[in-house]
Amino acid sequence: MPLPTIEWEGDSAGRVRLIDQTLLPTELKFVYCEDIKSIWHAIKTLMVRGAPAIGIAAAMGVVLGMKDVHAKDADIFFKELKQVSSYLRTARPTAVNLFWGIARMERIAEENKNKSVREIKEALLHEAIKIQNEDKVICRQIGENGAGLLKDGNGVLTHCNAGGLATADYGTALAVLFKAQEQGKHIKVYADETRPLLQGARLTAWELQHAGIDVTLICDSMAAHVMKLGKVQCVIVGADRIAANGDTANKIGTYGVSILAKEHGIPFYVAAPVSTFDLSIKSGGDIPIEERSPEEITNGFGRRTAPEGVKVFNPAFDVTPAKNITAIITEKGVIAKPSAENIQRLLGTFVS
Amino acid sequence: MPLPTIEWEGDSAGRVRLIDQTLLPTELKFVYCEDIKSIWHAIKTLMVRGAPAIGIAAAMGVVLGMKDVHAKDADIFFKELKQVSSYLRTARPTAVNLFWGIARMERIAEENKNKSVREIKEALLHEAIKIQNEDKVICRQIGENGAGLLKDGNGVLTHCNAGGLATADYGTALAVLFKAQEQGKHIKVYADETRPLLQGARLTAWELQHAGIDVTLICDSMAAHVMKLGKVQCVIVGADRIAANGDTANKIGTYGVSILAKEHGIPFYVAAPVSTFDLSIKSGGDIPIEERSPEEITNGFGRRTAPEGVKVFNPAFDVTPAKNITAIITEKGVIAKPSAENIQRLLGTFVS
Repeated sequence: MPLPTIEWEGDSAGRVRLIDQTLLPTELKFVYCEDIKSIWHAIKTLMVRGAPAIGIAAAMGVVLGMKDVHAKDADIFFKELKQVSSYLRTARPTAVNLFWGIARMERIAEENKNKSVREIKEALLHEAIKIQNEDKVICRQIGENGAGLLKDGNGVLTHCNAGGLATADYGTALAVLFKAQEQGKHIKVYADETRPLLQGARLTAWELQHAGIDVTLICDSMAAHVMKLGKVQCVIVGADRIAANGDTANKIGTYGVSILAKEHGIPFYVAAPVSTFDLSIKSGGDIPIEERSPEEITNGFGRRTAPEGVKVFNPAFDVTPAKNITAIITEKGVIAKPSAENIQRLLGTFVS
Repeated sequence: MPLPTIEWEGDSAGRVRLIDQTLLPTELKFVYCEDIKSIWHAIKTLMVRGAPAIGIAAAMGVVLGMKDVHAKDADIFFKELKQVSSYLRTARPTAVNLFWGIARMERIAEENKNKSVREIKEALLHEAIKIQNEDKVICRQIGENGAGLLKDGNGVLTHCNAGGLATADYGTALAVLFKAQEQGKHIKVYADETRPLLQGARLTAWELQHAGIDVTLICDSMAAHVMKLGKVQCVIVGADRIAANGDTANKIGTYGVSILAKEHGIPFYVAAPVSTFDLSIKSGGDIPIEERSPEEITNGFGRRTAPEGVKVFNPAFDVTPAKNITAIITEKGVIAKPSAENIQRLLGTFVS
């Protein structure tokens, strides 16, 4: 089983235990957050990262922030809650799931405002654990829905880290592999190292190795050769945002892998919760692509590896067109040949 | 103008000056080799690398090795030459051009054996400089033949380093860019960093920057996205070995780039001297692919970036099938739509 990325220990006066992802893969160390300052620091410094995991950390952060508030007066309690929420939001001001997690907690407090402080605190802890459990259920369902696509002995290529470390514990793309393994299938994974930040080498290889899944690390530039050698029967990746027509933004390099898969006649799967769909965006061309710091490329490994002053282009994401995607695996079902119609059919049934 | 990778200074009692490529791109330092031990060390430690450049270094190494031999007796002189040659061959025992360069020097000594020691030494220096000059002519002719394929304002993507630093001074793939620049064309180059050893980031970006050519560094995984954005009008790469049918072995990642180019309708050119053709090899499937140390991927640049014990696949080369190659640019001419027939036609006319 994959390790829990983040967990609550004890009652509403308890603490958070999380894996310090900045130390991976060379050291597996649990960090204990006893108060709001320490969880703020953990989020800020990327000890915990990945959209769903940040949402859980934020919710648990609210519980930590309120545990020493013993006000009997509801007004004072809610004033404190507001301060705690504001403070937590400053940890990573652009992380959508941080705001989403805190908002859910504030709503629960509001719904329980006529109860005792002790009862409100219990309701808050209950909600934080509910958010975590929902994520566990969604990820397991993605795994369940995707595992049927894998056969015993298959080779699978993945890019970046869409694993347990980005969620409560089970991941999205990697959930499919974990579930296939639970079903007794032997899967052989090729993990792209994923330059510039090496999430494939640092996190995916580590997670799969820890779960006892056969994993081989390669450089991104080796994927085509590995496919030509017949070592890969499908590709599975995660997603950061999926447009209404199925065009999918994911870590830079994903689009190239989709072309290589097509060239070699290999199915290309995207695994993601339905919350990843952004139906306000018609197609991939409208998804903005974040550009990041040149130093991620020129000074990536502890020393400078490119000439001073060289121009660098460092897009963090690219967009894979729906036509290159064999199917999108969600917790609600598998969307084969993704298109606006096929996506609307699945989301319409289960979500709207 | 690109910098000279390796040069002889003075008469047959002179010395070698070379760029220490292990210090690039952060430091441009010339190393002076006054004796055979120092040139042996320079070859051994990759201060000078690249097949043609190693051939030149070997030839100049023979001159250095003989400069303190003042024997009047021809027998003693040739015994010393044999020792010098044997010693030099141990610097990089698998480098074909090392053996080739030394063999040419031994042949010249043999041809001049009835002359005085002073005259033989002069003939040796003459031959070493001839090898270097031949390389300069070949590379410039490749540039000349290829530059016509580029238009003013074109974007060009290249992979690894097929530049001046791998030859006397002008390169093969990069020769085409240098020549286009000399013709007054403005070329915008995208250089793949080329994991695992980053020859693109360390050497190609540095060379092009030094030559005043507009260069932008990207990770290998970004090539597809850059092509989709319309920033690249052609790809030019070098070659390590070309089979009789045009299948081309080159740095790992080249094959993937050829697929991406095809997908985006972008011409894919290989630039290489005719000596790169190995007609004894019928097709790419027969070219052996060297696998290198896992540490190049897991411990690339000063720190460990992958879990201990993880399996690694590290092929140094891949094979691009002839059908993905728009043309092969050689010093003898451009072979469009490479095939056994087209290649034989060019080589038959000029070489056999």
